[in-house]
Parts: sequence; structure tokens; C-alpha cells
Amino acid sequence: MTSDKYAASLEDIQAAAKRIAPFAHVTPVHTCSALNELAGGRHLHFKCEIFQRTGAFKFRGACNSVQLLSDEEAKKGVVTHSSGNHAAALALAAKLRGIPAHIVVPHTTPQCKVDAVRAYGGTLYFCEPTVDAREAKCAEVAAATGATLVPPYNYGPVIAGQGTIALEFLEQVPDLEALVVPVSGGGMISGIALAAKALKPDIRIIAAEPAGTNGGADVALSKMAGWVVPCAKPDTIADGLQGRLGDLTWPVVRDLVDCVVVVDEQEIVGAMRLIMERMKLVVEPSGAVGLAAVLSPAFAANAHTRGCRRVGVVLCGGNVDLGARGLWDCWIPESARRED
Amino acid sequence: MTSDKYAASLEDIQAAAKRIAPFAHVTPVHTCSALNELAGGRHLHFKCEIFQRTGAFKFRGACNSVQLLSDEEAKKGVVTHSSGNHAAALALAAKLRGIPAHIVVPHTTPQCKVDAVRAYGGTLYFCEPTVDAREAKCAEVAAATGATLVPPYNYGPVIAGQGTIALEFLEQVPDLEALVVPVSGGGMISGIALAAKALKPDIRIIAAEPAGTNGGADVALSKMAGWVVPCAKPDTIADGLQGRLGDLTWPVVRDLVDCVVVVDEQEIVGAMRLIMERMKLVVEPSGAVGLAAVLSPAFAANAHTRGCRRVGVVLCGGNVDLGARGLWDCWIPESARRED
Repeated sequence: MTSDKYAASLEDIQAAAKRIAPFAHVTPVHTCSALNELAGGRHLHFKCEIFQRTGAFKFRGACNSVQLLSDEEAKKGVVTHSSGNHAAALALAAKLRGIPAHIVVPHTTPQCKVDAVRAYGGTLYFCEPTVDAREAKCAEVAAATGATLVPPYNYGPVIAGQGTIALEFLEQVPDLEALVVPVSGGGMISGIALAAKALKPDIRIIAAEPAGTNGGADVALSKMAGWVVPCAKPDTIADGLQGRLGDLTWPVVRDLVDCVVVVDEQEIVGAMRLIMERMKLVVEPSGAVGLAAVLSPAFAANAHTRGCRRVGVVLCGGNVDLGARGLWDCWIPESARRED
Repeated sequence: MTSDKYAASLEDIQAAAKRIAPFAHVTPVHTCSALNELAGGRHLHFKCEIFQRTGAFKFRGACNSVQLLSDEEAKKGVVTHSSGNHAAALALAAKLRGIPAHIVVPHTTPQCKVDAVRAYGGTLYFCEPTVDAREAKCAEVAAATGATLVPPYNYGPVIAGQGTIALEFLEQVPDLEALVVPVSGGGMISGIALAAKALKPDIRIIAAEPAGTNGGADVALSKMAGWVVPCAKPDTIADGLQGRLGDLTWPVVRDLVDCVVVVDEQEIVGAMRLIMERMKLVVEPSGAVGLAAVLSPAFAANAHTRGCRRVGVVLCGGNVDLGARGLWDCWIPESARRED
């Protein structure tokens, strides 16, 4: 099942777990009886990657990648282009090894994300907000510094690192029948599927994907078509889920993911609110996509999922910008507002 | 230290812990390195009562009170007047014993709180929003049903129940030098002080109190005066902290609380945002008052607290109404809003 035709084997993932153990948190699993009821009596188990370092699962893959470098390579640092959780994760992973992290970001990146990279000691490079400009700047930095490129998901060591989520989860809750994992580029679900199917071949791996307001859902379409269907970047509140399947992640998604449940924007927002109100946990929209899938009519109807009673859901990230969209200002009464 | 001149002894609290163990959660302790830095390098430990059943510590006291009833008393049920966390806690505690809970609420109570009581099976009685009307209605219900009154804080079994927080916390983190506890009526801090000082006489018990926009802070004033200073109901975003010291809680606050740190509305809101953004935890404003105190200049300056390195903070409740003040609507883009 996890032969060398895929980007990472069970052994790679187990080695990654040992490698990142001194740095990463073993995240807790939470349950919530109110949500079990809403899920038609299923027993939901939530893997809280929101408590992972840097607030998202991305630290696992970044840390594994950085720790894998030889001392020679490490000295020259790492480079990536990302404005999201991978950027902050790579910056911290590099800091913990005492090496430079070069992070290329579009100049349109929100200040809070720029601040996060800077707080972890990353060096920022600003560029135009196009894929071409980002890749060109990244190549330029790599050439100038000799830094190793660590892509956000289509990269073996990153996939192996994300797979450690499944090792932990199945140790914490061995009798899970299905794992529900948000998907876009497929790094997290590839690692999880490779680990989980190797340990427990009968387990169902369910991808949860936002439809987006422009009809994205390229993972669902690609699974149906049998090849990677090119799609526009999905327009969704789940801004962490705007990647595209890569040549390393697609074969795993094609072969080991049992089905894709597509959710709309209202379902994502509804799940996010439930997680905050009922579980008292802060998730970003991307982090709520798994619960949105479990609560959707498609999940109850699907042949792969309808019989599953013990379901694991990955709450993959909790980095919400409370300053965005005027949230904080409109919540807080005037008398309690800060000047800043 | 915990002689019978107070409302509960260490033995009462230990008995309460055994009594509620089959029903209440042992809540986890979280840490956050970013907040340690903001606290000047202190090591902060957060007792997550937001994960307690019904979303707040109140379940401990309510459950202890209900379990203490004889079968004869229990049959007739319990009654209280409260529109907050105590009401929901008492409703669930009663439901778990299979007895009726009669909850008197002002007809101005927000719908979400009414819904919570109803969801736990409590019977609601609406009255005018005055203390006199609430007490009269409560007495009327008690007379008609024979139900036992379980007041929200000024009541021995409730104080003993809340004290179980300290037993757990000191078992989880034995070397704490100070405990920071939000205060208004004083039920939680009385229980915690009685337990903690009995087990560890040197530990500092620090009350955290909102000043309110109308200059409340009656606990701080009462401690300075040496008697209970009558004050107007504090006007504060921390709506869970609008009780007044009672004849059972005041002696404990007077004798066993080392100092009171008063925080303003901006400090509360700032702490709430930090807890959400850095710790990924949802707290209600009252639940953030402890961190607000630790981060305030008064804490660093105070003779009782400035030397404390290992500080325990109780995150006492997480019941935020995300529908209030238009929060949810203004956060969520139009495309993702539900119709309801």
C-alpha cells in the first residue's frame, strides 16, 4: 500500500515522528457530545492541530524538512514562497535549528501574517502578487543564498511530516473507522492516508473540500475524472485551502482517498461557529472544513461514510486574524476599545 | 486555616471532588510561550474550565449541591434565580440526577441563555428584571414545589464544589506560587483559597476584579476597608462578574485572599483577544479577567505578586454569544451567511 511509488512510506513517516518529537507538540484529541448529536449519533474525535506550534499542522512538515538537511545544506538556510501557515512554520523550524529562513511573500499579504513570519525570525522578501513573480523571486533568493527550497506540500519530507498526525491520532484513538481531512494541495491528506492505510487498511480516508463561490472543488472533479482537472484558484473563506494537487500528492489522493465531500461556504462558517461555541476552540475557516463535511447531507448519504460511527476529524489550523473584517471592533463595546 | 469558621473545609472540598468525579470533567492545563513572554518571563499555567461541562466552572458547585441532597429532598428538585452560567449548570446537574430544575430568569434574558437552560431540561419561570421580582418568584416556586434553593455562590456546597478546581490544579502543577482567580460574588475564589491555602499555606491567592465603567471594584474596596462596601452593580463587559460578596464568601476573601488586582475594560478585552489569537481558546470576557490581571502593571508592581514566577490562572468560562453585537454577521462575508 505504501510502496515506493508514493512520496513517503510508513517508515519515512515513523522516522519523521522521531525526528520532530523534540520540537513539535503531541496535540490533544477533544470530543463534544453536542456535536455527536448533531452528527446523528456518530462519535467524533477532533485532532487539535490548532494547538500545534505556530497554530497549524504545517509545523510538522516544515520541521521534518529542516531537520533532514545535512549540516552543510542547513547552514545555507531554507526558502519558500507562501503567505500562510507554511511560511510561519518554516520560519520557526529554521529558527529552532539556528539557520536562516527566507520567505517570499506578495506585498499584498496581510500585516498579521507578515508579523508572524518576522516574529519567528524569518527574513521577508516582497514581490508582486502573481505566481510567476513569487517563483522568480524564490529562485533568485535560492541562487543568491544557496538555500534549500521547502515547498508547502508537494515535497516528500513535508508529506512525511504531515503523516505524523495519523500516527498520533491512531495511537490516541485506535478504533477510528474514518479520518476526515481538509484538502487543497493534498500534502496533509497524502501523509495521513499513507500512514493510516498502512497501519489500518480498512480505515476510510475522507477528503473535505470547499466548493468555493466560483465552483472550484478540483480534488472532487479530479477524483471523478481520474486525472488532475485544471481549475481556477478557488474563491473561498477557507483561505488556507487554495493550493492545487501536485505530482507527488495526486497519486496518493487518487489511490488512497476513499471519497471527497464538498462543502459550501455556509457549511464552513456554520461549522466554525459550532466549534467556537460548543467546543470553545478557535479554528480558522480551513480548520472547520472537516466538521462541515461530517455534518453535510453528502456525508450521511455517501456509501463510504454513512456506516462509520467513530470518525476522526482534523482541526488543522487556528490562525484567525481577529482584526480582519472589523470583527473585533464590532464585537467590543465602545467603552472597551483600545486606541490602536 | 480552614477551620469551621468558614463555609467549607478542606475535607468538604475533597469530599466534593469525589462526589462530582463521575459527572464533571478534569479540565486540562494549557501553557503558551508567547503569553509567558508578555508576562515578563513568568510561567503561566491556565486551568481550562472553559472545557468543563456547560462551558464554565459553575458545574462543579451545582453538581456538588445536587448530589448532596437526600433522595427525599432530591425528588422535589432544585430552584435558583440566575440568567448566567449557574442556571445552565444547575439544570444539567439536576438532569444528571433525574430531578427537576426550576430556573427563574428575567424576561430580558438573551435567547441563547434561555435556550441553554432549556437544552439541559430546566423548567423556566420568567419574571421582571429586578432583584426583588427574582427573589419573590423564586420563593413562590420553592413554596409550590418544595424544591431546594441552590444559590449561585453564597452557599457552602457550591463553595466546596468550586474549591475542587484548586485540588486538581495543584495536582497538575504542584509548584505553582500563585493562583489568579476572577472575583465578584466570591464563590470560586473562596473555594479555591480554602483548598489551596490548606494544602500549601505559602501560595498566593490573587483576586482579579473588573473596575467596570461605573467604578465598581467592590471587592478591592471592601478588602481595603475591612468591611463589605456597598456598591452599584458593576457595569462591565465581564457580565459573569456582577455578583456581590455574601456573608459566607466575604470572610474567606477578607482572610485568605492576598490581594486584589483591578483591571479596566480595555485590559479585559485585550486579554480575551490574546487568549483567542495565541492560545486558540474561546473565553467569555469574565474568563479573560485573570490574564488581564497578570498582564496589568499593577500585577508587576504588587508586593504579593511581583516575585511569583509560576502563576496559575483560571480560565473560568467560555460561553460567548457569537450572535450578540452582530459579531458573527460582520465577520463573515456576505456569500457565506446563512439565512437564519
